[in-house]
Amino acid sequence: MRREGSVPEDALRVRVGRIVDSGWFQYTVVAVIVLNAISLGLETYEDEFAALAGRFETAERVFVSIFVVELVLKIYARGPAFFRDAWNWFDLIVVVIALVPTSEGFSVLRLLRTLRILRLVSVIPHMRQVVGALFRSVPGMGTVISLLLIIIYTAAVLGEKLFQEIAPEYFGDLGTTLYTLFMVMTTENWPDVADAVMEEQPMAWVFFVVYMVATAFIALNLVIGVIVTSMEQEVNSQRWAADQELELEQHNELMTQLGGLAEQVERLTEQVRELQAGTNRDRGAERETGD
Amino acid sequence: MRREGSVPEDALRVRVGRIVDSGWFQYTVVAVIVLNAISLGLETYEDEFAALAGRFETAERVFVSIFVVELVLKIYARGPAFFRDAWNWFDLIVVVIALVPTSEGFSVLRLLRTLRILRLVSVIPHMRQVVGALFRSVPGMGTVISLLLIIIYTAAVLGEKLFQEIAPEYFGDLGTTLYTLFMVMTTENWPDVADAVMEEQPMAWVFFVVYMVATAFIALNLVIGVIVTSMEQEVNSQRWAADQELELEQHNELMTQLGGLAEQVERLTEQVRELQAGTNRDRGAERETGD
Amino acid sequence: MRREGSVPEDALRVRVGRIVDSGWFQYTVVAVIVLNAISLGLETYEDEFAALAGRFETAERVFVSIFVVELVLKIYARGPAFFRDAWNWFDLIVVVIALVPTSEGFSVLRLLRTLRILRLVSVIPHMRQVVGALFRSVPGMGTVISLLLIIIYTAAVLGEKLFQEIAPEYFGDLGTTLYTLFMVMTTENWPDVADAVMEEQPMAWVFFVVYMVATAFIALNLVIGVIVTSMEQEVNSQRWAADQELELEQHNELMTQLGGLAEQVERLTEQVRELQAGTNRDRGAERETGD
Amino acid sequence: MRREGSVPEDALRVRVGRIVDSGWFQYTVVAVIVLNAISLGLETYEDEFAALAGRFETAERVFVSIFVVELVLKIYARGPAFFRDAWNWFDLIVVVIALVPTSEGFSVLRLLRTLRILRLVSVIPHMRQVVGALFRSVPGMGTVISLLLIIIYTAAVLGEKLFQEIAPEYFGDLGTTLYTLFMVMTTENWPDVADAVMEEQPMAWVFFVVYMVATAFIALNLVIGVIVTSMEQEVNSQRWAADQELELEQHNELMTQLGGLAEQVERLTEQVRELQAGTNRDRGAERETGD
Repeated sequence: MRREGSVPEDALRVRVGRIVDSGWFQYTVVAVIVLNAISLGLETYEDEFAALAGRFETAERVFVSIFVVELVLKIYARGPAFFRDAWNWFDLIVVVIALVPTSEGFSVLRLLRTLRILRLVSVIPHMRQVVGALFRSVPGMGTVISLLLIIIYTAAVLGEKLFQEIAPEYFGDLGTTLYTLFMVMTTENWPDVADAVMEEQPMAWVFFVVYMVATAFIALNLVIGVIVTSMEQEVNSQRWAADQELELEQHNELMTQLGGLAEQVERLTEQVRELQAGTNRDRGAERETGD
Repeated sequence: MRREGSVPEDALRVRVGRIVDSGWFQYTVVAVIVLNAISLGLETYEDEFAALAGRFETAERVFVSIFVVELVLKIYARGPAFFRDAWNWFDLIVVVIALVPTSEGFSVLRLLRTLRILRLVSVIPHMRQVVGALFRSVPGMGTVISLLLIIIYTAAVLGEKLFQEIAPEYFGDLGTTLYTLFMVMTTENWPDVADAVMEEQPMAWVFFVVYMVATAFIALNLVIGVIVTSMEQEVNSQRWAADQELELEQHNELMTQLGGLAEQVERLTEQVRELQAGTNRDRGAERETGD
Repeated sequence: MRREGSVPEDALRVRVGRIVDSGWFQYTVVAVIVLNAISLGLETYEDEFAALAGRFETAERVFVSIFVVELVLKIYARGPAFFRDAWNWFDLIVVVIALVPTSEGFSVLRLLRTLRILRLVSVIPHMRQVVGALFRSVPGMGTVISLLLIIIYTAAVLGEKLFQEIAPEYFGDLGTTLYTLFMVMTTENWPDVADAVMEEQPMAWVFFVVYMVATAFIALNLVIGVIVTSMEQEVNSQRWAADQELELEQHNELMTQLGGLAEQVERLTEQVRELQAGTNRDRGAERETGD
Repeated sequence: MRREGSVPEDALRVRVGRIVDSGWFQYTVVAVIVLNAISLGLETYEDEFAALAGRFETAERVFVSIFVVELVLKIYARGPAFFRDAWNWFDLIVVVIALVPTSEGFSVLRLLRTLRILRLVSVIPHMRQVVGALFRSVPGMGTVISLLLIIIYTAAVLGEKLFQEIAPEYFGDLGTTLYTLFMVMTTENWPDVADAVMEEQPMAWVFFVVYMVATAFIALNLVIGVIVTSMEQEVNSQRWAADQELELEQHNELMTQLGGLAEQVERLTEQVRELQAGTNRDRGAERETGD
């Protein structure tokens, strides 16, 4: 039954799994990520810490080494299961990027090191759940988001055609117009945009007011949709379950009681029947006697 | 019973109806609208795509042709029912506009082509529902919206009379004042407006603060009204129905059980009555005997 | 029994009451208020309508006459009850103001004519209800509003003392500081204020960030409080009442059924007792007989 | 049994406790805090009230004396229990600060006098509750707040690295970038920031749009989380309790009724058994007689 040779390996895997799942291991990883985040932050004060540039390089190498060890341990402990979780892929990619040699002083890969701070999310289980919940709330709202995008796109094509020549700095082409309309949607600087257009087309305020009211209204419905969905899932569901359970319990109690009563009455009926049968027999006997 | 001649036509109509309702037909229409939207968007880069101006004309004609065919098929398949749906009227008008010849280079009709992007809403059933729900949520809020408009209008007349001479650029006439107050309501640039007025009337901040708090408060109540309405309609209504059903079921079960018990006791009473009657008869007989 | 002389007057009062309550009377009043609002709006275009200045005067007199007649009829029809409603006092004051002679061209009283537009709220019953609901939602939020005001006041005193000499245009005295902090709370122009201060006190951003987060957080709780209160009052309250009623009804039905059953069993017990008594008497008689 | 000497002290303590808990004492303290707040506010008008500078000093001393007396009375009345409430510590510290001698004209301690206005919160029980509720709502949202901070920090490190050289006034170092991103999150002046960067990196709008949508989305989920939590705790909880109580009451009523019925039937059964036993005995006797 025992597979020779595989047992010690399995035992090692179990032991590594225990390390990887232990609290101190997880806290250490979180602490290293936080230190890495602080180090990345301090690096931005280039002039103040110019003397420490070499130290940052060393720290960077230490952090990456720790992350590599962490992931190797996790992959060893979890086996193929490790690769079934999207969060683990994120961890893996973010760390592998750090291993790619970057000869140039400034590169996209160096920038992507910043994403390692987001490992705080992938490493803390509660954070994973919250982010998972955020993403799960999106598809239900897909139609309203699409609607918002359709409205913005239509308004952009219309706005570009209407105001292109009046205010090319805001409505020069579709890209610029989309950017302008996103700005208007955040209500930032919209009077500047509107004034620039209204100098030549005094009725242009209609476009802006309708656009702002429409997007605000749809965004509001988006928010309300998310609230209602959250409510439906969470509010009172424990109470509701408790209510249902209590009701069922009470109902069963009543039914049992009623069933007992019915049996009691049944036995009583049987007794009375016997009594009657006896009396009848007596009567018969008496009649015989009396005859 | 079979109407001669009408059957092949009906059969054709049914077949066309099946095409019109088929997934690939709907997906094709959505795809053409999306292509049309992209084409309308690319057209805005006039300088970059100047060489392709003719191509856009051709594409435009192709899109319109497809839409015409689509609508003709739909009208044929649906018959008079087609015209009972407001969304279909929207589709029809938007496409008919495209058929009106526009000799001038730039016209309102050319602008209205942009509205064809909104056919994405009218063609996708789920979108129709969402937009329908948005519009249905408005009438319930009619009073609060009217109240908001009354407050804004009153504030505009008052503001115009108060600040007209101090800041004519913001409060010159009623139209300008309404525009200014809409701007203030979005909190954009309101300190500029207030400062312009407060230079001469230092107490004018009262007007702006009261106006902003009042409109924010009413707008907030508008939002809350929509939330509460949505809640009332959706939250827990399935559970509530389930609750009611369960309760009714349990109640009926109890009543049936009790009814059975009552019948049992009734039969028992009848038995005892018979027993008594028998005994009484016996007693009577005995008395006669004994006499 | 009939009080002489009072009957015709009462009959007249009833008839006037019927007029005042009739739909056409109310619609007419609403229409006149709307016309008055439009007229007040058009008056603001002084230059455009300079030739019509006299017409506006005439219209004004007509509107006021109609309002006077309306209120006289209402007071006659309602009697002392008229003065028990705060909305009626608003109507009365707003109309009486219009009757005060204003010799000067521009006066506060002329400005107050604008408030007549708000009679739309006091005349339409549904509007009264909505506004009443708005005001009733305030006291429940009194503590949170007070808290917000205490925070703003404390921040103003602190801000004035801290930044008074750095940026007197924003923090010169308490009034100016309160205005600045209201502005910062609306997030409008706050970077300008913060930058003006941070030039000399680089740590001043702490003040602004803490103040903005704190006021946003309290304002958010204010909003949530209003939502929760509205929910408590409205969501499911009809259903809840229906639930309670159904439950009570079902309970009563069960209790009645059980009561009937108990009576049945009681009668049965009585019968059995009689039976036993009869049997005992028989037995006694038999024994006597047998003796 | 009576401890000599301690009784009068206890009696005094009880009497002082009664004073401290009396309405007029609490109202007086609130009034003094309000007067102190007004006095602190008036002090900010230094030029206007320069002549009254001495009066403010006197008022300050009077206020502090009253607060010292108030706290001494409270500590005496409450005993060690006084120090178990964090709010009392706040009161104590704020008053003790006022007693520290400040030789210099302007000091941090003088600034902290402003915090005495916040004693309005610690002295009014209802305010304490509201603030307590505000703070209690935070930990439940801890993960979402952390997530928001992680996103802002990551965006800051990334933004600093990306735009540092293009717009050093906004992205010079990490502190500046964090301040800029907080500003962008409030949507204030964000187009200025974006434009400054987009002059050299036209694609930078992606960074700003993604950042704004992400933070708005997380902030929205934060708000919704607070709403849902509040709902869960408060909405319908009284009704729910009433419901549960009513249901339990009704259930108990039913069970009592059923129990009574069962007893009734039990007694009846006993009677019938006796009847049968009697009849059997009779029959036995008869048989003996008949034999």
